[in-house]
Amino acid sequence: MSELKATYVLTDPGADPEKRAEQIALGLTVGSWTDLPQLKQEQLKKHKGRVVRVEETEGDLGEKQAVVTIAYPEANFTSDIPAVLTTVFGKLSLDGKVKLADLAFSKTFKQSLPGPAYGVYGIRKKIGEFERPLLMSIFKGVIGRSMEDLKEQLRQQALGGVDLIKDDEILFETGSAPFEKRIIEGKKVLQNTYEETGHRTLYAVNLTGRTLELKGKAKKAAELGADVLLFNVFAYGLDVLQSLAEDDEIPLPIMAHPAVSGAFTSSPYYGFSHSLLLGKLNRYLGADFSLFPSPYGSVALAKRETLAIHDECTKEDVFKPSFAVPSAGIHPGMVPLLMKDFGIDHIINAGGGIHGHPNGAAGGGRAFRAIIEAVLEAEPVEEKAKRSPDLRLALEKWGKAEVSV
Amino acid sequence: MSELKATYVLTDPGADPEKRAEQIALGLTVGSWTDLPQLKQEQLKKHKGRVVRVEETEGDLGEKQAVVTIAYPEANFTSDIPAVLTTVFGKLSLDGKVKLADLAFSKTFKQSLPGPAYGVYGIRKKIGEFERPLLMSIFKGVIGRSMEDLKEQLRQQALGGVDLIKDDEILFETGSAPFEKRIIEGKKVLQNTYEETGHRTLYAVNLTGRTLELKGKAKKAAELGADVLLFNVFAYGLDVLQSLAEDDEIPLPIMAHPAVSGAFTSSPYYGFSHSLLLGKLNRYLGADFSLFPSPYGSVALAKRETLAIHDECTKEDVFKPSFAVPSAGIHPGMVPLLMKDFGIDHIINAGGGIHGHPNGAAGGGRAFRAIIEAVLEAEPVEEKAKRSPDLRLALEKWGKAEVSV
Repeated sequence: MSELKATYVLTDPGADPEKRAEQIALGLTVGSWTDLPQLKQEQLKKHKGRVVRVEETEGDLGEKQAVVTIAYPEANFTSDIPAVLTTVFGKLSLDGKVKLADLAFSKTFKQSLPGPAYGVYGIRKKIGEFERPLLMSIFKGVIGRSMEDLKEQLRQQALGGVDLIKDDEILFETGSAPFEKRIIEGKKVLQNTYEETGHRTLYAVNLTGRTLELKGKAKKAAELGADVLLFNVFAYGLDVLQSLAEDDEIPLPIMAHPAVSGAFTSSPYYGFSHSLLLGKLNRYLGADFSLFPSPYGSVALAKRETLAIHDECTKEDVFKPSFAVPSAGIHPGMVPLLMKDFGIDHIINAGGGIHGHPNGAAGGGRAFRAIIEAVLEAEPVEEKAKRSPDLRLALEKWGKAEVSV
Repeated sequence: MSELKATYVLTDPGADPEKRAEQIALGLTVGSWTDLPQLKQEQLKKHKGRVVRVEETEGDLGEKQAVVTIAYPEANFTSDIPAVLTTVFGKLSLDGKVKLADLAFSKTFKQSLPGPAYGVYGIRKKIGEFERPLLMSIFKGVIGRSMEDLKEQLRQQALGGVDLIKDDEILFETGSAPFEKRIIEGKKVLQNTYEETGHRTLYAVNLTGRTLELKGKAKKAAELGADVLLFNVFAYGLDVLQSLAEDDEIPLPIMAHPAVSGAFTSSPYYGFSHSLLLGKLNRYLGADFSLFPSPYGSVALAKRETLAIHDECTKEDVFKPSFAVPSAGIHPGMVPLLMKDFGIDHIINAGGGIHGHPNGAAGGGRAFRAIIEAVLEAEPVEEKAKRSPDLRLALEKWGKAEVSV
């Protein structure tokens, strides 16, 4: 009998965490047990939740906590994420300090999920780069700007040698640069820079609008030859991500943006763990990339949280690994630290660290590419900077993060 | 120029909350301002966010807080909730202790939203009761039960005189009682009880499955003559609620269940306020009913939170008022307190307080109806109990909540 195992962190779990766990396992499945007649118990046995683990522990501030794992029979719900979430964290999300830390799906359930269509290797194949972290940059100040402004920004970013350029997530179908036009015009710009430099850059266009229109828009994007879809998963719902990912007529990589997700991951006591939402669920439901706050910037996550997300993106599973994209606060001098923390298979993503370069976005891109090369070749960064004026300027402006050994 | 005003509570807002508010207003709109050339400033003026209010205050535990209102030009985003949420709480939800307390929509924006199709008066018309709180009961122990079991439960609940009966939110399309069958069989049962008792009871059937299948299922439900759709809004997304509500081919009242919503309302520092999510947004986007934890049970919300939700459901607006449904921990002896707190226009909703009655669910319903009548007629509850054995038994079992004057 297949089961879905949910792990929770209960804070202030009461005097008897074992009993509380039993109440959850029953309350969210068959309701009651010991007061049922023998015959009913027999009938309902295959629907009864069971307590797998109860471990008393302490929170970061010394709070009394219990880590509890409950197994829910899959006979109780359909194979869709809304049913899963309602079962394991519907009523329970309202019941005191409970955080959903992890979900372990059965093999059968996993087979119904799409996973990333491209994943790390598929994206690398599109770009033609296999042995270094990829480099992404973000448009800056997009609202109210003309198509010409955006095209020039795109061009400057691509000229610096970045591998991917993403829309700002707050760019919608307003103004003079709507979705389809951005795809068409963006493609032309990037074809030109490819012909000039020989380097291929992909553009992730922001898929927005009403839920029921997204598939149509995404299909149109595919027809127009879009490279990648940027998608604000958490302003919609995880099931919508899955629907986009599993549609054969939308053969595009999906980049999951974490907008709004802070509302249900930030608290240490409530909501979802970062690694479950931004790592595992994004990957299982079909995101090829998952963006999340880096541990370095002003909008920062704790490093252990970011490493846990990265781990969920890349660890061995039936699905392809997805690209972890730690974002915010990234400038060229952070690269040695980033590569120490996240390795080769992640994406270095910068906004201000590209655009704020003294030589403009193209200079920013070149500085990043230079320091990535230096780290890969184990060349001292200062040596590299002697031959890369862009890197030297970047280090002068932003400094270099210390890498502890 | 139309604006959307978002009010946030920032905890530990830093030394200069005014400056932080300015950073938000710029960062989430035009990006930067003072370093832009005059010409660009002129072009971007209509896109620039502005700080409406900054008020320093204190949290319940003496934390330093600031209540900040930012006005976002509607020129920046399309008229859909994902665009709104991404704009006002996308990146910001990830940026420290920030709670989205309220959204004030422009008249124009409101005109694009459906609001409740029926609302309080429309639901009352369906039932034929205008001068008392309505009474709802919930199925109990539904998972793994046969259609016959559920039919008998439905019948017993209806015989007690309840006005509405709702599915358990964790009942999906598994087992022997799928969606369409429940509607068809449920209708027969309730037609029979109507013929026996002359009292009309509505059945709220749980609409579940993949997001993109919901409309088809809801239309089928309407064709089959379903009364009300129960919907786990927060396991899907608010935009999905809106799509269901605005579809003319789905002329059914929608009952919004709060499953999963605790993940983004429970923390005092992060996520959404209860009144915004479960009150205002549910109503604006088309829910005729909004369920939320009552302030009385073991799964409880603070009373001020529940009153704020109720207020958002019922206050003067361009939309019809919706029914507030404070749930959990409700037994007949709570009714005087419930009616003092929530008045006539709300729904008294009970599970255990109906099914756990010594005379079964029918007895539970009768006990509730008797005490509601007593409160309306200002008859002392103890007097009423002398003529209502079901009420007497209920008061003996569960007692009576004190109503402070």
